Amino acid sequence: MTILGTGSATPVLTRNPTAHYLQIEQDGYLIDCGEGTQNQLLRYKLRPTRLKYIFITHLHGDHYFGLIGLLSTLNMHRRTDDLWVFGPKGLAEIITIQLKYSEGWLNFKIHFIETDTEKSYQLFENDYVTVTTIPLVHRVPCCGFLIREKTQKRKIIKNKLPLDLRIEDLRTLKNGGDIWDEDGNVKYKNSDFTTAASKSLSYAYCSDSLYHEPIVEIIKNVDLLYHEATFLHDLLPRATQTCHTTAKQAGQIAKLANVGKLMIGHFSSRYKELTPMLIEAQLEFSETILAEEGLCIDMKEI
Amino acid sequence: MTILGTGSATPVLTRNPTAHYLQIEQDGYLIDCGEGTQNQLLRYKLRPTRLKYIFITHLHGDHYFGLIGLLSTLNMHRRTDDLWVFGPKGLAEIITIQLKYSEGWLNFKIHFIETDTEKSYQLFENDYVTVTTIPLVHRVPCCGFLIREKTQKRKIIKNKLPLDLRIEDLRTLKNGGDIWDEDGNVKYKNSDFTTAASKSLSYAYCSDSLYHEPIVEIIKNVDLLYHEATFLHDLLPRATQTCHTTAKQAGQIAKLANVGKLMIGHFSSRYKELTPMLIEAQLEFSETILAEEGLCIDMKEI
Repeated sequence: MTILGTGSATPVLTRNPTAHYLQIEQDGYLIDCGEGTQNQLLRYKLRPTRLKYIFITHLHGDHYFGLIGLLSTLNMHRRTDDLWVFGPKGLAEIITIQLKYSEGWLNFKIHFIETDTEKSYQLFENDYVTVTTIPLVHRVPCCGFLIREKTQKRKIIKNKLPLDLRIEDLRTLKNGGDIWDEDGNVKYKNSDFTTAASKSLSYAYCSDSLYHEPIVEIIKNVDLLYHEATFLHDLLPRATQTCHTTAKQAGQIAKLANVGKLMIGHFSSRYKELTPMLIEAQLEFSETILAEEGLCIDMKEI
Repeated sequence: MTILGTGSATPVLTRNPTAHYLQIEQDGYLIDCGEGTQNQLLRYKLRPTRLKYIFITHLHGDHYFGLIGLLSTLNMHRRTDDLWVFGPKGLAEIITIQLKYSEGWLNFKIHFIETDTEKSYQLFENDYVTVTTIPLVHRVPCCGFLIREKTQKRKIIKNKLPLDLRIEDLRTLKNGGDIWDEDGNVKYKNSDFTTAASKSLSYAYCSDSLYHEPIVEIIKNVDLLYHEATFLHDLLPRATQTCHTTAKQAGQIAKLANVGKLMIGHFSSRYKELTPMLIEAQLEFSETILAEEGLCIDMKEI
């Protein structure tokens, strides 16, 4: 995962609006896409051709104003592969009207999938992951996303494989089963030919929201939780008024959900120095890090 | 005037999309507003509160995708002053639909004025300037803008003013008239109390367009012509196909129009080094300069 932006609504030169890029197998996943996100992809040498899935949490500008520019650029790069765009009602209409007036119809197909931000449900799955929505409480309809690797298969020990094994048997071994002969006896014992599957990783992205405990059940035990922390806790009234979370509250959510690690971001432009943010969250949940522009995270090392 | 961007449609890290900021008296004028323009205003410390007039040439993204972000930011800065936005059909609809879904109705009024890109006409005037449209030939409706200072008044020599002069007489002097007494004799001769007016300056902005000689009549003798020069002339077929101009052609237009100075910009992302662009245009019209990010031009010194 690469962090493309850590800022909030008011632009500052030192931060970009929130956007996270994930590479899972060969596919690129982008979560949120504020103004300038395509430049951040360029800056960190992330190939936009790989981009396949885009998830937009809500229709505040710092989370989607960069989408139309990114789509236009993908088109200029002669993309023909389909693209999936998930977001709240209105997003497809906004993009379509801009394409109409630019007379710049795309050479590739976009599948717009409207999110229901009111409930938690499985929004999407492919061979590698499932994506579940996380209803959040904000000033406009908004949901976060929980990306969870599918249960991994057991790993075949290739140099031990008997030559009479069929493709069907391979699948059985990967799924943890033994191979039986026609008489009903175990012919090949699974543990002789496979090793344990790697751990299924999970990542939850929660921005923007009021402190909202009902999300805890959804994000329980995830390996990495990204949670917004727009303000320090001394500005709790301001956070509440604008439907945002404080660093302390983000730490509290992480603790309640027993996550592996917490990453905070979406910092208000008023904070030049972020160490107080980090300390405040760490006092609640020690395994906290700050989101930083360009920070690259290998989920396997979380 | 400050140049905020010199790039064209394909984003590169070294250039921003085209946008020019003009300060005339107390008012800010912005011409075109590609993605990231508001960050450029921040970078060059141009106060967005002064911004009063925004002119959009056409609805290709590199000329307007930054507008919605800029408007949102003006709103967050608690702007209450009216703003005038000039642009082709569709612009108001695009902005309005985005405001609707963000539930972020503005605290200030925007006067959207739709341009007729088919003809040249006076689009706007205030106390200081007139703005005339320059029909251009592009893949979507597009016009440039000619900003011309109104005829300047003569300057009063303050320490010479007779004490019996009335406000009405001051206006007469500024307009070049003498002051007469009741008997029909010249009481105060204009040239004794005033000096010549400063020159009225003019600036023409032409982006994007096919080489199009009919604009010459409109921009004749302007002090500064900005003309796009997306390609070098060896790519004339590509320029023609995409309705753009080459550096050589921009020089030819400047020569035909007998302008004071030519500034070229809107460079294709394929050109890292721009000196060949400059030389090609200068061979046609020696008084040519390159647009550069952050270049600040005092029109009085042109």
